[in-house]
Amino acid sequence: MRLSSVSIDGQRTWGVVEGDTFLDVGAVLKDRYSDLKAAVTAGLDGVAAATASAKATPLEAVTWLPVISNPDKILCVGLNYEMHRKETGRTEVENPTIFARYANSQTGHLQPIIRPKASIELDYEGELAIIIGKPGRYISREDALSHVAGYACYNDGSVRDYQRHTHQFTPGKNFPDTGAFGPWMMTPDELGPLATLRIQTRLNGTVVQEATFDQMIFDIARQIEYCSSFTRLEAGDVIVSGTPGGVGAKRNPPLWMKPGDVVEVEVDKLGILRNPIVQEAA
Amino acid sequence: MRLSSVSIDGQRTWGVVEGDTFLDVGAVLKDRYSDLKAAVTAGLDGVAAATASAKATPLEAVTWLPVISNPDKILCVGLNYEMHRKETGRTEVENPTIFARYANSQTGHLQPIIRPKASIELDYEGELAIIIGKPGRYISREDALSHVAGYACYNDGSVRDYQRHTHQFTPGKNFPDTGAFGPWMMTPDELGPLATLRIQTRLNGTVVQEATFDQMIFDIARQIEYCSSFTRLEAGDVIVSGTPGGVGAKRNPPLWMKPGDVVEVEVDKLGILRNPIVQEAA
Repeated sequence: MRLSSVSIDGQRTWGVVEGDTFLDVGAVLKDRYSDLKAAVTAGLDGVAAATASAKATPLEAVTWLPVISNPDKILCVGLNYEMHRKETGRTEVENPTIFARYANSQTGHLQPIIRPKASIELDYEGELAIIIGKPGRYISREDALSHVAGYACYNDGSVRDYQRHTHQFTPGKNFPDTGAFGPWMMTPDELGPLATLRIQTRLNGTVVQEATFDQMIFDIARQIEYCSSFTRLEAGDVIVSGTPGGVGAKRNPPLWMKPGDVVEVEVDKLGILRNPIVQEAA
Repeated sequence: MRLSSVSIDGQRTWGVVEGDTFLDVGAVLKDRYSDLKAAVTAGLDGVAAATASAKATPLEAVTWLPVISNPDKILCVGLNYEMHRKETGRTEVENPTIFARYANSQTGHLQPIIRPKASIELDYEGELAIIIGKPGRYISREDALSHVAGYACYNDGSVRDYQRHTHQFTPGKNFPDTGAFGPWMMTPDELGPLATLRIQTRLNGTVVQEATFDQMIFDIARQIEYCSSFTRLEAGDVIVSGTPGGVGAKRNPPLWMKPGDVVEVEVDKLGILRNPIVQEAA
């Protein structure tokens, strides 16, 4: 199942994507769930059944919102592919590197990623997002995948000079409309095994990042185990699982995203997240 | 005015503290505001007038919750007093160091700070919390203080080995029940000028940290200006403004908080935040 948050004629809702059609399950279940996060919290109970009576809208007519617009937590994993770790010159570590993105930095599929007035150093980071379905603390590696509600494409858009202002990444990772999340989350039963799936980032059609998920330094189960060791994971929380090598900042000369560019993050089977780059208004 | 979030007989509410009495303004204004954050968002409109009809409860009968239980963002400023910067061996930087605490790591006045099973390296960080009242982006230094709804004591309880797992502080700053926030926020008109106010952290009655706010490297206006340069500040957001020198981790031998200890953060005029340390259940 593919699940999205969208707006239709200015009305926010959520639902199921089947082929080229959006099914407005949010309207059918509005007395049970206020948004997709609430449905995820309830284990998507009743969602599949509700598709039969849901109004269909062509995908071209929906405005895509971040898959989960209001997660309690967005936990970002840094330096989780060897090629990216090496290009940044960081030493090996025994635990995942975790930084935070706030919910109000997100944007949806086909919505602009905004290059801020403050900087031209706007960089892409294609990543796999993990949406937590079942809350938990001290989740074991063995149980970890049973806590996953689904997976989605994510572009952890980064403003590199702000990221380097100090040793903490937060400022460079939280500009408005830089964290693209979509178009949908796919449930694990539909996506199947992840290890050999490929993630690819393309800037104006040119491949700039590529990896398979078995190249992660800390796999998804370990990310969930580690994050749940220091915080209680809640339903709707998002773990953004790190980016492969090839970021623009480490190229010579650097490759920054600029107004007019189009950036895509594609994951095999899962889909394509596409965003135009737009300059912030003066 | 002093404003708190509390529970009384298991019922969550919020209100105004006058002397030794809690006035349940939340009950009076329940059709207007769901919680203190909502009242802050509305500029505390109608709050003072509602105290006249609010039910009074002695402070001993309330359970204190974090002043703002559900902020969209908690932005923590690191290394913001020269003595603390020096004790950590960090170089001088031109911008504030910002890391994130998630809302579910917070606790209230007199509630336990939990030493986790995972570590004995539980450290105190007495700090001043700034509660944003008026949202904004690109807030100037000159306008910054007009965006402040109030100030509160904060203990940015830190698990140091987790903080040092990698270069990003997030894990060590997000254990459940480690971010103590209270007992109340005080509005700027009541607190008055901050510069010469003293903050003091005491562990079992012994002073372990002490500074005045004019010793901050980046003052409150600059913190607001900088944070609003990379994120939109929302009403109810909290900026935790950094801790003075004297943390337990940099003592020889280190001074960790342990079960049975009592830690206090006191700010002149503002009040005392007091928390016992309790070991996490096995």
